[in-house]
Amino acid sequence: MASPSAATEYGLSSQSGQVAADSEPQSSDAPLFVNEVERAKKFLATMMDAGVVAPVPKDPGGGYTHEQHKLNYKAIYEGGQLYRITGEQKYADYVRDILLAYAELYPTLGEHPARKNSQGSGRIFWQVLNDAMWLVDSIQGYEAIRGSLSVTDRTNIDDNVFRKAAAFLSTGSAETFSKIHNHATWATAGVGMTGYVLDDKELVDIALLGLDKSGKTGFLRQSELLFSPDGYYTEGPYYQRFALKPFVVFAGAIEKNDPARKIFEHRDGILLKALRTTIQLTYDGYFFPFNDAIKDKSLQTDELYHGVAIAYSKTRDPGLLSIAQWQGRTVLTDDGKLVADDLAAGKARPFPFKSLLLSDGPEGDQGAVAILRQVDSVSGQALVAKNSSQGMGHGHFDKLSWQYYDNGNEIVTDYGAARFLNIEAKEGGRYLPENESWAKQSIAHNTLVVDEKSHFDGDEKLADTIAPKQLNFSDVEGAQISSAVIEGAYPGTSFTRTLALLDSDGLSEPLVIDVVRVRSTKPNQYDLPLHYQGHIMRVGFDTESNITARPVLGADNGYQHIWVDAVGKPLGQNGFVTTLLDDRFYTYRFVPQRGAETILAEIGANDPKFNLRREPIVIQRVKGAQNTTFVSMLESHGRYDGAAEQTVGSDSQIKSLNHESIDGADVVFVETLDGKKIALAISYDTDPGKKHSVKFGSQILNWTGFAARIDLPAGKAKR
Amino acid sequence: MASPSAATEYGLSSQSGQVAADSEPQSSDAPLFVNEVERAKKFLATMMDAGVVAPVPKDPGGGYTHEQHKLNYKAIYEGGQLYRITGEQKYADYVRDILLAYAELYPTLGEHPARKNSQGSGRIFWQVLNDAMWLVDSIQGYEAIRGSLSVTDRTNIDDNVFRKAAAFLSTGSAETFSKIHNHATWATAGVGMTGYVLDDKELVDIALLGLDKSGKTGFLRQSELLFSPDGYYTEGPYYQRFALKPFVVFAGAIEKNDPARKIFEHRDGILLKALRTTIQLTYDGYFFPFNDAIKDKSLQTDELYHGVAIAYSKTRDPGLLSIAQWQGRTVLTDDGKLVADDLAAGKARPFPFKSLLLSDGPEGDQGAVAILRQVDSVSGQALVAKNSSQGMGHGHFDKLSWQYYDNGNEIVTDYGAARFLNIEAKEGGRYLPENESWAKQSIAHNTLVVDEKSHFDGDEKLADTIAPKQLNFSDVEGAQISSAVIEGAYPGTSFTRTLALLDSDGLSEPLVIDVVRVRSTKPNQYDLPLHYQGHIMRVGFDTESNITARPVLGADNGYQHIWVDAVGKPLGQNGFVTTLLDDRFYTYRFVPQRGAETILAEIGANDPKFNLRREPIVIQRVKGAQNTTFVSMLESHGRYDGAAEQTVGSDSQIKSLNHESIDGADVVFVETLDGKKIALAISYDTDPGKKHSVKFGSQILNWTGFAARIDLPAGKAKR
Repeated sequence: MASPSAATEYGLSSQSGQVAADSEPQSSDAPLFVNEVERAKKFLATMMDAGVVAPVPKDPGGGYTHEQHKLNYKAIYEGGQLYRITGEQKYADYVRDILLAYAELYPTLGEHPARKNSQGSGRIFWQVLNDAMWLVDSIQGYEAIRGSLSVTDRTNIDDNVFRKAAAFLSTGSAETFSKIHNHATWATAGVGMTGYVLDDKELVDIALLGLDKSGKTGFLRQSELLFSPDGYYTEGPYYQRFALKPFVVFAGAIEKNDPARKIFEHRDGILLKALRTTIQLTYDGYFFPFNDAIKDKSLQTDELYHGVAIAYSKTRDPGLLSIAQWQGRTVLTDDGKLVADDLAAGKARPFPFKSLLLSDGPEGDQGAVAILRQVDSVSGQALVAKNSSQGMGHGHFDKLSWQYYDNGNEIVTDYGAARFLNIEAKEGGRYLPENESWAKQSIAHNTLVVDEKSHFDGDEKLADTIAPKQLNFSDVEGAQISSAVIEGAYPGTSFTRTLALLDSDGLSEPLVIDVVRVRSTKPNQYDLPLHYQGHIMRVGFDTESNITARPVLGADNGYQHIWVDAVGKPLGQNGFVTTLLDDRFYTYRFVPQRGAETILAEIGANDPKFNLRREPIVIQRVKGAQNTTFVSMLESHGRYDGAAEQTVGSDSQIKSLNHESIDGADVVFVETLDGKKIALAISYDTDPGKKHSVKFGSQILNWTGFAARIDLPAGKAKR
Repeated sequence: MASPSAATEYGLSSQSGQVAADSEPQSSDAPLFVNEVERAKKFLATMMDAGVVAPVPKDPGGGYTHEQHKLNYKAIYEGGQLYRITGEQKYADYVRDILLAYAELYPTLGEHPARKNSQGSGRIFWQVLNDAMWLVDSIQGYEAIRGSLSVTDRTNIDDNVFRKAAAFLSTGSAETFSKIHNHATWATAGVGMTGYVLDDKELVDIALLGLDKSGKTGFLRQSELLFSPDGYYTEGPYYQRFALKPFVVFAGAIEKNDPARKIFEHRDGILLKALRTTIQLTYDGYFFPFNDAIKDKSLQTDELYHGVAIAYSKTRDPGLLSIAQWQGRTVLTDDGKLVADDLAAGKARPFPFKSLLLSDGPEGDQGAVAILRQVDSVSGQALVAKNSSQGMGHGHFDKLSWQYYDNGNEIVTDYGAARFLNIEAKEGGRYLPENESWAKQSIAHNTLVVDEKSHFDGDEKLADTIAPKQLNFSDVEGAQISSAVIEGAYPGTSFTRTLALLDSDGLSEPLVIDVVRVRSTKPNQYDLPLHYQGHIMRVGFDTESNITARPVLGADNGYQHIWVDAVGKPLGQNGFVTTLLDDRFYTYRFVPQRGAETILAEIGANDPKFNLRREPIVIQRVKGAQNTTFVSMLESHGRYDGAAEQTVGSDSQIKSLNHESIDGADVVFVETLDGKKIALAISYDTDPGKKHSVKFGSQILNWTGFAARIDLPAGKAKR
C-alpha cells in the first residue's frame, strides 16, 4: 500500500510571496533568516532585561513557573544560536548565567508539587515530558556556548545540570524512557544529545539502544515501531507533528557526530518519509484533527520549522522550500540559513500534495488513512477517510470516520480534542472531562453508531487490538475511491464504508458519495451522524421542531451532550439539508431507508461549564434493522457573493439520488437537474482484475474491480 | 457637534501592498486600472458568448430573470466603458444589441409578476428600486456608445428604452420619485442622467427639483435632508453605502454637464463629507452593522469604488488612495484611471480614521453616533455608541446601544439584519420574519430593556419622533468618553448611558467602562444584555444550569428566541464572565445590584427554519427596582498562542470594580491586581467648564465638566 507514484500533485500556494512582502532584508542574508535572527534578538533582549529568573517549580501547565521555565529553555537555545551566529559575548554570558542558576536549583529538586502522579512527575515541570523538552532545547543552546566557558563553570553546569537531567530522564525515569512512545523519543533525544555534547558514550548508547542496550527500546527501535512503512504515526498528525521534532533533531545530531551510522537511511529513510507524510496530512496548512488534536495546529509550528530545515538540508527537495515559505519561519541553525538562502534564490517549487493511501502500524497492516484530493490543497477538495487503528490512549472511537475540506474550509468536521491548551480556567489546560464524555465517543465522529454505544464499547485496550481493513483505493482523477471494513467494533455487527470523490459533467465541484453497508446478526438501532460547519438554508423534509424546550438525545456515550432541534421522516427525494458556509452552498443528501428518521441537532447539552463548542449535527437514524445501507452524498454548489450581492446556484443541482442492491453489489445512481447521470458501482470484490456486470431494469452496468464510476446515458433534462 | 479637529488618526493599513502583490502590470497603465479592464473584458467575453438574453421578467430577487437583468445592466455599463477605453467595435455592438432587445421588451412590460404590492412594482424587476438601479448603470453605458449608433437604432433605443424607463421612474412612479429616501435618489439619478444624455432638460429639472420643480423634493432636497451636517445618513452605514452611489454618480454627471451649479460645494460640500463619513463608519473595512445591515458588507463594494474615485478626482486626498488600495478595485472611468495612476505613483497616505462624533438628523439635532478609537482601525479598539435616531423603516429599537471592536474582531456585537440576501431558500432573499421578531427588538441589542418590551413598545412611527440626546463627547487619548440620554423610549422611564475607553497603567489594552443610569416613576424589571463573540472560559459566580432541557426566556419582543443556559446571582466581586476569541481573552465584569441575576443565554429558540445565527448573550437583570445603575466593564487581556502553545494573562488582571453614587454623581472605581487604581467620575452636568468635587471616605475627587478619568493613589498590590 505505498503511495501512488503517478498521482496528480496539488501545491500549497496561497501564502506564497508572503515572506517577501512582510520583511525587508537588512543585510546580505536572506530575509527569512534575518527575520529569525531579529526575532531571537528581540526575545533575548526582553529576557536579558528581566535578568535570570529560575523560580522553584510550583505551577502546572499554563502557570507562572511552568511558563517561565519554558521561556528559559527557549532563551538558552536561542541565546546559544545567537552567540554562534553573531559571536556577541553577551549571549554566551546570559545563557551561562541561566544555566548556573539551574546548577544551583536542579540538584535541590524532587517530585513536582503539581504532578498528576509520581510516575510521570518531572523535576522542573509537572510532567516528565516537559523536562525532556527542556533538555532537548537546552543542550543545543549549551553546546553552542560550552567552549567559551571557564573550566569551573563548565564542570559545574555539566555535572549539576546536564548529567543530572540526563540521569533523571533515563535511569531516573526508566519506565518512560523505555516506552515505544513519543514521550520516550523526547527523553532519548535529550539524553543522547547530552551524551554527544558531554562526550559520554554511555548516554548515547542507552539513548539509541535502550537502558539495557539491547535495541529492544531506545531511539532506533522507536523509529521502527512508531511509524508505519508510509511514515504515518499511529496517534495521528497532531502527535506526529509533536513526535517528529526529537526524531529529526536527534537524527541531525547523530548524523553530525556519527555519520557512519547513516541514520537518515535507517529503515528505508523512514525519518524523512515521516516528515513528508506529516506535511501531507494537512489542508490549507492545518493538520487533519484526528484523535486528541488541538485544531489550531498548522505547519507553522516549531517542530516543523526544525523538520523542514533538517529535511531540506539532507534532500534539497525544492517542495520543502515552499513549505518554509508558507510557514514564514525557519530555525537559527545552518540548515535554517540554507533554507532561507535557497528560498531567496527562487529555488522553491510547490510541495507535491496528492491523493495518498498511508498504511498504519509498524508493519503497515493496521488499517490506513486515505486522502483523496482534487485541485489544490488550499481551496480545493480533500476527502479524508480515517481507516486507521485506534492509536493508543489519545485515540478516538472513530473507525471509518471521514472529513471533508473544500473552498478553504473544513466542511465535514472532526471535533478534535476537548481541551483548551494551557488555559488555567479550563482544568489547568489539561484534557477536559468532555474529552472522554464527548470528543472520544463514536457519536462525536462521522461514523456508524450501533445502539447508542461507542465502538468497542469505549474499551481502549480492546480497540488497540482490532484495526479496520483497507479494501480498495483508487486515485484516478475524477473517480477517486476508498473503501474499508471494520469487524469487531460491535459484537456481531460489521460495516464497510466506501467514500468516493466523483466528477460529474456540468457540476462545478466534485461529488462525494458515501456508502455504509452494515451487516449484523440481529436487529439494531443505527445512527450515522454528520458533523458539519455551515448555516442551514433549506431542509428537504418536514420536521417536528423543539422550539420552546430543547431536549437531550440520550443518556450516555456522548449522546448526553446533544440537543435535539428537530426530527423528521424523510421520504423519496426529500432527504436533504442545504447549508451555506462562506460563499459556497453544500447539500447533504441521502436515500432514506424504510422508517428512517433524521435528527437535526447541536452539541452543548450537559455542559454546565461551557467546555464544548456549539456545533451542528445531522443524524440519519434507522431503528430495528438488521442489515442496512446508508447512501449519502455531499454536493458543493453555487456561490454567495455578499459584496456584489449576487447569489447563484443556492439550491442543489441534483434531481435524484438512488440506491440499488443488485447481486451483492451496491449501485448508487445520481442524476443532475440537467439530466446527466452517473453511477457508482461497488462489487465488494478485492480482486482488482475481476469484471463485474449487473442488470438494472433495461440497463447493464459493467465494471472491473472493487468499485467504479460509470457514466450513464443522459436522462431527460429538467430545464 | 463637528468632528474634533485635533484627533489622533488611525489608518487602515492591513491590506496595503495587496494590489502590487495580486497583479502584474500588463501595459504602461497602472495595475489597478489594468485589472479592471481585464476583469471587464472577461465578463463581457462570457456575456457575448451567451449572446443577448433579455427574458420576460418573472422572478423575485435571486431568481433567474432577476439575476439575468442584473447581468445585463452590468454588461451595458462595462461594455460602454470598454468601447470608450479600447475603441473596439464589438463592445459597442453588443451593448447596442442588448439595448435593442430591451427596446422590444420594455414597451410590453406591465407590473412585475413577483411584485410585493403594485405601489412598489418595477417593470424589469420585482421592485421599482431595481429598475432605477438598472437605469443608473445602463444610461452610463449607453452614453458611451450612443454616438456610434445609426439614427434608426439611436431613436429606437432613446424612445423605447430610456424615455420610457425615465417616464416610468418619474411620473409613472410619482410617489417613490417624490420621497426623501434613498429609493428616490436612485430614481432621480437615473432620470436626471437620462436627461443629460438625451438632452432632455425637463428630465434634468424634475430630477433635481422634483416633479413640480419646486425644489421641495428631488435630488437637491434629498442631499439636504438625507444627510446630517456631519454627513451621517439616518438609516445607518449599510444603507448610507448604498445610498451614496446615486448621489456621487449623478453629482459627477451634474458637474460635467452643468459645472456652474457647483454641485460638490452644495450645502458645505455635503456629498464628499458623506463619502468620508461612510468610510469612517467601518472597522477593518467592514461597516458597523446598525439597523437592517447585512454584516458581510465592506468597503469592497461597487458603490464605494465609484464614491472613492469621484471623491478623489475632486479632492486629490491621498487618504482616499489607501482606501482604493484596500479595496483592490476601482472603476472604469477616467476618475478610476486617475486613482490607479496616483496609487501606482506612490501617492497614497493612510486614511485618517479617528474618534468622531457624528450628529444625526438634517439639522444635526437627532442624536448622534459616537466613535471612540484607539491604535489603528484594523486591529486596534473601536467603541461605537449608537445614540442616533430610529432611522425610519429599517431602524432597530436600539437606543443607546453600543458595539466594541478589538484585535480585528467584533467583540460586543450587533446582530444586524435577519436576512440572507438573494438566497431563494430564505424567503426569496427578502427580510425574514425573524427580522421583526428578533433583529429589530431591543433585547437583540446591547441596550436597556424595561419589562421585556422593546423601546417605544416597538412602534416605529413613535420611535421616529423621539431621538436620544448626546450629552458629552471627549476624544482625549486614554480618556475618551461619550454620554447620552433617551427619554421617551419607555413611559416614565429614562436612561443615561456613559461609555468610556480608558487607559490604565500596566494593562496592555484600554478598559471599556459602561454606566447605565436608569430613572423611573415606578418599579420595573430591567434587563441589560451583552451580545458577544467568544467562548466562555470562566464564570465568576455559581450558576443553576439548564443542562438537560433548555427553556426559553420569554414570550415576545425577541425574548421568545432566547434559550436560557444558566442563571446565577452574582455578589461582590464575582460578577464576571471571561471569554476567549482568537488569541485574546475578554472579561465582562459588572457590579451586581441588590438581588440582581445574571442570565447566560443563546439565540435560537422558536426558530424552526434555522433562520437565526446561534450567538451567545449575557443578560444582567434587576427586578422590582425603580432607579438603578448598571456599572459594567470590558477588559481585553492576555494572549493565547496555539502555534507556540503559550498562554499568558488568561485570567482578568482586575482586582475590583466598584461603584458609588455621591451627591448625584456616579463614580466607578477600578483597581488592578498590581494595585493601580483609576476612577471614572460622572457629574451629569453638561457645563464643560464647571468644577466638581466629591468626597468618598478619606478621598476627595476633583474634576471638571461632565465626566473624567481620575488616577488614584495606588492600592496595596496583590502579588
